[in-house]
Amino acid sequence: MFQEYDVIVVGAGHAGCEAAAAAASMGSKTLLVTMNMNTIAQMSCNPAMGGVAKGQIVREIDALGGMSGIVSDKSMIQFRMLNRSKGPAMWSPRTQNDRMRFSEEWRLALERTPNLDFWQEMVKEILVENGKAVGVKTALGLDIRAKAVVLTNGTFLNGKIHIGEKNFGGGRTAEKSATGLTEQLITLGFEAGRMKTGTPPRVDGRSLDYSKMEEQPGDAAPGKFSYSDTQPLQKQISCWITYTNDTVHKELQKGFEKSPMFQGRIKGLGPRYCPSIEDKINRFAERDRHQIFVEPEGWNTVEIYVNGFSTSLPEDVQYKALTRIPGFEKAKMFRPGYAIEYDFFPPTQLSLSLETQLIQNLYFAGQINGTTGYEEAACQGLMAGINAHQKVHGKDPFILKRSDAYIGVLIDDLVSKGTQEPYRMFTSRAEYRILLRQDNADIRLTELGHSIGLASDERNDKVLAKKRDVEALTNELNKTKLEPDMINEGLEGLQTSAIREKVAASHLLKRPQIDVASLKSINADLEKLLNKYSIEVQEQAEINIKYDSYIEREEQLVQKLGNLENFKIRTDFDYDRVKALSSEAREKLKRIKPETVGQASRISGVSPADVSVLTIYMGK
Amino acid sequence: MFQEYDVIVVGAGHAGCEAAAAAASMGSKTLLVTMNMNTIAQMSCNPAMGGVAKGQIVREIDALGGMSGIVSDKSMIQFRMLNRSKGPAMWSPRTQNDRMRFSEEWRLALERTPNLDFWQEMVKEILVENGKAVGVKTALGLDIRAKAVVLTNGTFLNGKIHIGEKNFGGGRTAEKSATGLTEQLITLGFEAGRMKTGTPPRVDGRSLDYSKMEEQPGDAAPGKFSYSDTQPLQKQISCWITYTNDTVHKELQKGFEKSPMFQGRIKGLGPRYCPSIEDKINRFAERDRHQIFVEPEGWNTVEIYVNGFSTSLPEDVQYKALTRIPGFEKAKMFRPGYAIEYDFFPPTQLSLSLETQLIQNLYFAGQINGTTGYEEAACQGLMAGINAHQKVHGKDPFILKRSDAYIGVLIDDLVSKGTQEPYRMFTSRAEYRILLRQDNADIRLTELGHSIGLASDERNDKVLAKKRDVEALTNELNKTKLEPDMINEGLEGLQTSAIREKVAASHLLKRPQIDVASLKSINADLEKLLNKYSIEVQEQAEINIKYDSYIEREEQLVQKLGNLENFKIRTDFDYDRVKALSSEAREKLKRIKPETVGQASRISGVSPADVSVLTIYMGK
Repeated sequence: MFQEYDVIVVGAGHAGCEAAAAAASMGSKTLLVTMNMNTIAQMSCNPAMGGVAKGQIVREIDALGGMSGIVSDKSMIQFRMLNRSKGPAMWSPRTQNDRMRFSEEWRLALERTPNLDFWQEMVKEILVENGKAVGVKTALGLDIRAKAVVLTNGTFLNGKIHIGEKNFGGGRTAEKSATGLTEQLITLGFEAGRMKTGTPPRVDGRSLDYSKMEEQPGDAAPGKFSYSDTQPLQKQISCWITYTNDTVHKELQKGFEKSPMFQGRIKGLGPRYCPSIEDKINRFAERDRHQIFVEPEGWNTVEIYVNGFSTSLPEDVQYKALTRIPGFEKAKMFRPGYAIEYDFFPPTQLSLSLETQLIQNLYFAGQINGTTGYEEAACQGLMAGINAHQKVHGKDPFILKRSDAYIGVLIDDLVSKGTQEPYRMFTSRAEYRILLRQDNADIRLTELGHSIGLASDERNDKVLAKKRDVEALTNELNKTKLEPDMINEGLEGLQTSAIREKVAASHLLKRPQIDVASLKSINADLEKLLNKYSIEVQEQAEINIKYDSYIEREEQLVQKLGNLENFKIRTDFDYDRVKALSSEAREKLKRIKPETVGQASRISGVSPADVSVLTIYMGK
Repeated sequence: MFQEYDVIVVGAGHAGCEAAAAAASMGSKTLLVTMNMNTIAQMSCNPAMGGVAKGQIVREIDALGGMSGIVSDKSMIQFRMLNRSKGPAMWSPRTQNDRMRFSEEWRLALERTPNLDFWQEMVKEILVENGKAVGVKTALGLDIRAKAVVLTNGTFLNGKIHIGEKNFGGGRTAEKSATGLTEQLITLGFEAGRMKTGTPPRVDGRSLDYSKMEEQPGDAAPGKFSYSDTQPLQKQISCWITYTNDTVHKELQKGFEKSPMFQGRIKGLGPRYCPSIEDKINRFAERDRHQIFVEPEGWNTVEIYVNGFSTSLPEDVQYKALTRIPGFEKAKMFRPGYAIEYDFFPPTQLSLSLETQLIQNLYFAGQINGTTGYEEAACQGLMAGINAHQKVHGKDPFILKRSDAYIGVLIDDLVSKGTQEPYRMFTSRAEYRILLRQDNADIRLTELGHSIGLASDERNDKVLAKKRDVEALTNELNKTKLEPDMINEGLEGLQTSAIREKVAASHLLKRPQIDVASLKSINADLEKLLNKYSIEVQEQAEINIKYDSYIEREEQLVQKLGNLENFKIRTDFDYDRVKALSSEAREKLKRIKPETVGQASRISGVSPADVSVLTIYMGK
C-alpha cells in the first residue's frame, strides 16, 4: 500500500512541516504523517512569529531555504521590528499572523512540494531493525517503511490538560493525545521526562473596550521575514496593550488552592520565560501590574489572544480576574486557558545532527527535545529534515556552528547541556550575537543552504549579488572623501560636530548620530552614490562600517575558538583511556558524546582542565 | 461566569450553525457550544451542497433567512443546475465547495451575528428542572443556564469509527466522540438507537491521471443558491467521472470477510441511498460498474474526494481496489474511508417544532434525529433555532406545512413516521413537488421568514417586487396577441407548428418547444416586452404559464387536504375517549401526538377509517 520512503516525518506542527518540506525539497521521497490533516501547522498558542532572538531564527530558516518565513509573510496581519532603538544585533522582526491563513499557507506549501506524500493517522511505534529506524507502525496497524524517521510530536505524547482541579488527556485543546510512542522509546532505552506549558484564554473581541487600552500599531514602514519576493503589508491590524492590577491579582490568588501547579498536580517544569500569570504574581509579588497584549487572531475573526495571561487556574477564577482588567470588564471567553503536560526526551541523547544516539536514522525535533516556541521547533525540524535526507543519501551531517547561526547555538545548547525546563532562545545565549544578526542571515547561511541543495539557485545568486554590492558600496564610501564646506552645515543640522579636514564618508557613518539616511540628507552626491544600491545593501554596508570593530573582535574570537571546534572527536572515542579526566567529565562525555572538543568544553561539568587534557590527548 | 442565555445550541455543524444564527438573528441571547472552534461547519463528508431535492432545501433555507445558501455561494468552486432537461420541479442546484472556505465563511458569518456567543467545550448533560431544559453542564463541570437548548450532536454521540476489523471511538476522523449525553437522555426517558454512515478515502490529486476520466465542468452560465446579492462564479473547477469495474469489485470482495458491516460488527443501519461501495456491489451484483465522481476539495488544495467509493473495508483492500479504477492506477491515499456508528433518537419523540415531547424547551436537530445530509441537518437546525426563539419569547411555533416546503415534508415525515435508517430527502417524498420548486422558494417562504423576524426587510421587499413583476409580466403576456404573419416564420424555425389565427403570447409559451428565449428570438416587440423584466421574473412567469394546469391541480389538492391540516389536535387530547379508533392507531397517536388530523393521517397504522373517526369526533 505504501512505497518505501526515504524519510517519514511524524507530526505536522512547525517542526514537522519544516522537516517534511526540507527533506522532500532536497529530493527525499517523504511521507508526512499527521493525526489530522485539517490541523496542519496550527498556531496552538499565540498568533505570532518571531520576536527577540526568535525573529533571527525565522530569518535563518528562510536563508537556508526553509518555509516558515514565507508562510509567516503570507499570513501576517502586522509587522514590527523590535528593538530598533538598540544596536542591530538586537533588532528582531516579529509578525502577528492570521491563524487560519498561517495553517492554510503551510498546507498549500506542503501540497505543492514534490516528493511529499501525506497520511492521516496516529503513529504508535517506530519500526526498528538492528538498532536502526526503518519506518513506523500506525494505530491501524499499518507498517510504513522508510530509511529514516523524524519525530516531531509536540505536546501530544501522553498530553494531559489541566484546568484548576480538573485534568484530562489531550494533545491540544479539543484534540486527542498520542499514546504508545513514549512507552516504546523507553523500552528501547531512551530516558523520558515530563514538561509543562500553557496557554491563555481566548476572548471575543466584540466584548472588549479598546478605549481603555493603548494601541500598538505595526511599523510605519513594515518589513518582512523572507529574503525571497514575498510582499510587505499595505495595511495592518493593531494590537492593544492593557495591564493587570492589584484586584486582578487578588482574584487570581483566590484560585491558588485549586492551582494544578501550586498544588503539585503538575510535575513537569514550565517555561521560565513564558510564565503563567499566577507564576508571575507569585514570583514577582513586588510588581503591582503585568502587561497584557491583546492580539487579534486574524484579519476577520473576532477571536482575541490574551498574551501574558497564560493560566491553568479554574475557569471561573480566570474569568473573574480577566474581567478586572481595564477594557475586559465585559469580556466574553471563548475558552479558558489551560496547562498541558507532555513527554519529552532529554536532548543530550541526540547528536548535533538531531539523530538519536541510541537508534540510528531516528531524528527528534521540536518540543519533544524540551524546547518551547514555534521558531525553536521550526528550526529543529528544518535541521532534522535536512540531516535525515543527508543520512539516507550517504552525505555528511549538516551542522551549524554557534558562530554560524542561532540555530547552531540552540542545537549545541540542547545536545551539550540538555535542559531541565522548556528551552527558549535569547540573544544572550549567543556569544557571537553581533555576528548573528537578522539583517545578515542570508549572507551567513544561504550559500550553505544552497550547497546542500535546499536554497534555490535564484536565492543564492541574489545573495552573491548582495555581497558584491555591499562590498562595492563599502569601498566607495571608504574612497569618497568629503570636504568640510561640503557637509559641515548638514552636520550641524544633525547635531553632530563639524569636521576640520576632509574625511571618508565611511568615517562619518561611524558616528552614532549619522546613518545612511542622514548622509543622503546632507550631500546630493552621497545621495546619488547610495541610491545606486538597494535599501538592504545600504543598510548592510552601514552596519558593517558602523560596527566593524565589534564585528572584527567577534570574528577573531570565533577564529580562536574555532580551533577547538575543528578538533573532531569520533563517536566511538574511548574516554576511559584518558585517565586524567575528572570522573564527572568522563561520565558526561560518555553520555553526551560531543562531536568536537569545542562542544565538549560547553558541557556542564567539563572543566577547562578537562578540555586541556582532551586537547593534549587528541593532539597526539 | 455566564449570563443566562435564551438559547444554547450544542454542536456547530450544519444544524448547529443554522440554529445559532437563526435564534441570535431573531434576537435571542444565544450561546453556541462546540468541542472545537477550529472545526466549525466542517464538511465532514463530500465537499458539495445541494443536489436533487437537497438543492431545493438550501434555496428554502435561504428564502427563510438562513445562512447555508450564502455560505455555499461564497465558498463554491463549481455550480450546476441538475435535471435541467426535466420539468422545473426537478431542477436542483448543486455546488462543489472549497471545504476550508466553507468552514471559514460560516465561522465569520456567526462571528458577525449579534447576540451570539461562543464556548468551546463538550456538553455532558442537559440541565433539567420540572421537566424543562434550563441549560447545559459541560465537561469542566460548568453549569450554563438558558431558557431553551438545541442539541445538534451529529455523529459525535458515542461515535465509533470502523475500518475493516478495527474500530475506535471518534466523532469524526481524528476527533473525539462525545459521551454522557445519550446516557442522560435515556435516563430521562428517551428512546435511543444506533445509526451508521460512512465516507470514502481521500486521495492526492497529483497522483491521478485525469486523461482516463470524463470531465464534468460547471454550468456555462452558473447560478447560485442565495436570493440575496451573492455573486455567481466567474471561473469554475471541473470534477471528473470514472467507473469501477469487475477487477475493482473482485478486489473489494476479498475484504468482505473483514467487513464490519457484513460481519455484523456494525449494528446501526446505514443510509440506503448513499450506500458504501461494498453495499453497491453486494446489492446490485448484476451491475458491472459504478460511477465515481472525482471531486476537488477546494481552489488550491490537491485533496480529492472520491464520491461513490464510501467504504469501511480494511484500508489495504480500499487501496488495492482504488488503484484498479481507471485514472487511479498510481493513486496515493491521504486517509482511508471509514464507517461511523452513532446514537440517534427516533424523531417520533418530537413535536413538529422539533421540541421534544418529554422535555420542554429542548430541541433536537440534524443527525441525532436520524437524518443524513448537510441540507437535511441545516434546515432542521434552522427550524429548531427559530422555534427555540419563538418558545422563549412566548410566540407560536413556526411550522411549515408539507405544501409549504421540502422542510415541512422532512419534519412531518420524521415526526409522524419516524425512520429506521438515515433519512434523506427526495423529490418523490414531496406530494406537492410541482409547487415546491427551487425557483419559487423565495415566493413561498420569504414573507413567512420575514413575519417571524428572520428574513430582512430588504429580502422581503425584493420578493414582493418580484411577485408584482411576475404578475405584471404574466398579464402582459396574456394580453399580447400575436398575428400569424408576425411570428409564423419564427415558429417554423423553432420546428413548431404555425398558427392560423392570432393567439396570446402566453398561449405560445405552453408549447414544449417554446420558452422565453425563443419568444424573444421570433419577435422584436416580445423581446422588448420581456426584457423590461429581470431574468428571474421572466423564468418565473414562464414556469407559471407553462405548468399552470399542473400547478393549479396541486393547489386544489392542497386546499382540499388543507382542511385536515387545519384540524388542530391539542397535545393533551385523550385518544382513549375515542372508542372507535383501532388499537394500533390509538397507540401510535398517543405516542406521536400529531398536531393536526392531517399529520395523524400520515402515521403508519392510522387508517383512513381512523381518520374519519377522528374527524367526526373533532367536528363535534
